[in-house]
Amino acid sequence: MSYRQNIQLTPEKNLKHFLAIEGLPRAVLMKILDTAESFSSVGERAVKKVPILRGKTIVNLFFENSTRTRTTFELAAKRLSADVLNLNIAVSATSKGESLLDTLSNLEAMQSDMFVVRHAQSGAAHFIAQNSPDHISVINAGDGCHAHPTQAMLDMFTIRRHFDDFYPLKVAIVGDILHSRVARSQIHALTTLGANEVRVIAPKTLIPVDITSMGVHVYHDMQQGLKDVDVVIILRLQKERMGGAFLPSMQEYYQTYGLTEEKLGYAKDSAIVMHPGPINRGVEIASSVADGPRSVILKQVTNGIAVRMAIMSMTMGTAGQGASA
Amino acid sequence: MSYRQNIQLTPEKNLKHFLAIEGLPRAVLMKILDTAESFSSVGERAVKKVPILRGKTIVNLFFENSTRTRTTFELAAKRLSADVLNLNIAVSATSKGESLLDTLSNLEAMQSDMFVVRHAQSGAAHFIAQNSPDHISVINAGDGCHAHPTQAMLDMFTIRRHFDDFYPLKVAIVGDILHSRVARSQIHALTTLGANEVRVIAPKTLIPVDITSMGVHVYHDMQQGLKDVDVVIILRLQKERMGGAFLPSMQEYYQTYGLTEEKLGYAKDSAIVMHPGPINRGVEIASSVADGPRSVILKQVTNGIAVRMAIMSMTMGTAGQGASA
Amino acid sequence: MSYRQNIQLTPEKNLKHFLAIEGLPRAVLMKILDTAESFSSVGERAVKKVPILRGKTIVNLFFENSTRTRTTFELAAKRLSADVLNLNIAVSATSKGESLLDTLSNLEAMQSDMFVVRHAQSGAAHFIAQNSPDHISVINAGDGCHAHPTQAMLDMFTIRRHFDDFYPLKVAIVGDILHSRVARSQIHALTTLGANEVRVIAPKTLIPVDITSMGVHVYHDMQQGLKDVDVVIILRLQKERMGGAFLPSMQEYYQTYGLTEEKLGYAKDSAIVMHPGPINRGVEIASSVADGPRSVILKQVTNGIAVRMAIMSMTMGTAGQGASA
Repeated sequence: MSYRQNIQLTPEKNLKHFLAIEGLPRAVLMKILDTAESFSSVGERAVKKVPILRGKTIVNLFFENSTRTRTTFELAAKRLSADVLNLNIAVSATSKGESLLDTLSNLEAMQSDMFVVRHAQSGAAHFIAQNSPDHISVINAGDGCHAHPTQAMLDMFTIRRHFDDFYPLKVAIVGDILHSRVARSQIHALTTLGANEVRVIAPKTLIPVDITSMGVHVYHDMQQGLKDVDVVIILRLQKERMGGAFLPSMQEYYQTYGLTEEKLGYAKDSAIVMHPGPINRGVEIASSVADGPRSVILKQVTNGIAVRMAIMSMTMGTAGQGASA
Repeated sequence: MSYRQNIQLTPEKNLKHFLAIEGLPRAVLMKILDTAESFSSVGERAVKKVPILRGKTIVNLFFENSTRTRTTFELAAKRLSADVLNLNIAVSATSKGESLLDTLSNLEAMQSDMFVVRHAQSGAAHFIAQNSPDHISVINAGDGCHAHPTQAMLDMFTIRRHFDDFYPLKVAIVGDILHSRVARSQIHALTTLGANEVRVIAPKTLIPVDITSMGVHVYHDMQQGLKDVDVVIILRLQKERMGGAFLPSMQEYYQTYGLTEEKLGYAKDSAIVMHPGPINRGVEIASSVADGPRSVILKQVTNGIAVRMAIMSMTMGTAGQGASA
Repeated sequence: MSYRQNIQLTPEKNLKHFLAIEGLPRAVLMKILDTAESFSSVGERAVKKVPILRGKTIVNLFFENSTRTRTTFELAAKRLSADVLNLNIAVSATSKGESLLDTLSNLEAMQSDMFVVRHAQSGAAHFIAQNSPDHISVINAGDGCHAHPTQAMLDMFTIRRHFDDFYPLKVAIVGDILHSRVARSQIHALTTLGANEVRVIAPKTLIPVDITSMGVHVYHDMQQGLKDVDVVIILRLQKERMGGAFLPSMQEYYQTYGLTEEKLGYAKDSAIVMHPGPINRGVEIASSVADGPRSVILKQVTNGIAVRMAIMSMTMGTAGQGASA
């Protein structure tokens, strides 16, 4: 996967595209976190706007509907003073029989500066970055089961704000690892940032066979998996993405893997609870935990704006500098 | 209904939310009208923009489709230099099974400053205001049959621009009072502002049984009801909201209650004609009246922008000051 | 058609509306091209924005869906710093039974400054301009089979950038002339700007009977029609607009009229290839030609933004000056 390392970075190792955590060095991830720190105060100001991307054209290129994710990118872009175009591609040009590459060529010819891409197919954002001219940056807003790297970075930002350092931390990711683009990105980020231990907790049917090659420990039991853990990341049970053969019933899932206050007791007293949202109350997480004092779920949402502002401004800062050879 | 009085005002009696005319003192309504007066020139300038809400994030939270109302709020927000997010909630997050409160929590976490709420259910805006943190203002853009207070205030603004004072005025509201959120808000506004007399004119089936408790006089006949009246407010016949048992036929309605030039003759010679729009020509109003010299229907639309700018800037000016105890 | 001449121009012969090329004098077309030249550098700047239309309200009034065209107007408006309202009228107010004129009256009352109109019916933009008050400019973004004048002007701009002068040029337009709003506008523009010769090439079924009255030469054969030509304009085969009786088969069309490298060989060596997009690869044009060194198809897209900025700023500059008598 070394090609990914190259296309995301300029020769000087600055961020050009943001497609996957995979292949990004620790220094780049740390710089994203540091830059996001400098943006996190913008949302608290009376005037929530900085002129950094004024006059830039950012296209939200959504081939898959996701109001929530689009909204966070739209807000981040507007707070950077950029102009935003929302294109729901499923219902537009391609319905006139135009190919994806022709649609891209046209948007490029309109002097767009950035594509924020959401697509149901793994690798779509990467394909678009490979086929875009030098002055355009591409950000992956979720592609198939592959990656959701801005979500992973806002999770890392939230963890660092709470614990300062990744080295001593044990992190458990609970849920449907198999179908989760978020989990994959989180594991890469935690590993790169040097977390002490990354665990995944799920029934066997929801864990990819090669997962241990990513450096994680596998658990099928919450009591063992959560023991001594500092961070519990609960994944959303993607009902719409699952076949039916994977899980016996929602009730049984909640009983075994749903994060209740009782199960949270297995983790450290200082452990925090995270979830990428939207949450299914009473399915993968109890309401009392989601709304409880150890939940940082809404802080993740707030941090998401600052992290996306950071990634947008960093990639835009390298426009026209070419990809790493 | 004293709780409503409290939640809409700060302890200093300034406007925090704008949910219903009910419970707002005369001084606040007058301040809205005076503030709107100062904004009404903005729309006539070459640069139709003031920087009052620059860097604020206003979310149009529409659970019910209404392009016309959304457009007026979007324009008002943009002329105040705010950033606007349009969310059609029917087709977005809630379709992923997220609860309304979770959607709100997320929008709050994104550091939104204001929710403009349109909902088919009465009380929705009030519920959202009750469940929002202190720094967020909520404006009711129409909830069920309950209220449409910005429409009522633009009507009051239009009346005051024409007659200067409310005290001598007799006002008749004609049409489907039973299902109209506008009528309810107008009656509260006219009563609070001290209009001499408020009348409703409609068939019995379209008048709520307890209407006289609101201080209005009920008429079922246009000739009697319009006698000596200064302002005639015609309501839209909400075909989509009616069952069928309420009215014999559209033709018969027009014959009895449709405002023709002949029926307008029953009112004062100086009477003006108002309608919240969109009008059904030949149903509740004749084209010659709607387009005639005594119609102020399009002035209402123009005034709607200034009034919404006033309400938005006033509620935002009290952000974080807490609701009245 | 002299009424068209009048309604588009002020008494001083400045552009007030932009509805059709027909009736516009050469001087006005040249001024559009010169103004577009001055805007074409804006898209290459770091801050792609000029404050010319700051505080103006531009309404994209699309009665027919066209994401591509709407996007170019939205970008042009934003780069001029205007506020943009996108209204898809098919799904909004008119569904509540409001008439087109009432919708317009309401948008005017909201102090809009410009309507960009797309409509499936010929003459729609002209009708709207005739029924709009003096301070509103109307731009035709495509009406039925009648006209698509901004497309024609971006084509002229692209030609002039390449050849400097229109006088020596022979231009061939290939394809469905009968149903093309683009072709009609292009022919008027080329004739007015003084092109040496304008040809149309198509099967008999796709050429209007009265076409020679527009001053063009008709060909049914590519070899003869492309001989000595400087500019080849390929039209999109509007599958959605054709009945079926017009063409034998797509394959046969490609064989006879599809622009392949071989057929392009009939034209001058210096000839350029244009297409309004979106292209049907392998139907009216071969991929090797569309992507080849003589294609200026993507330059047309880029130029489209500058030309629309020019037309928007020119029409707005004459707001309130009245139409030519």
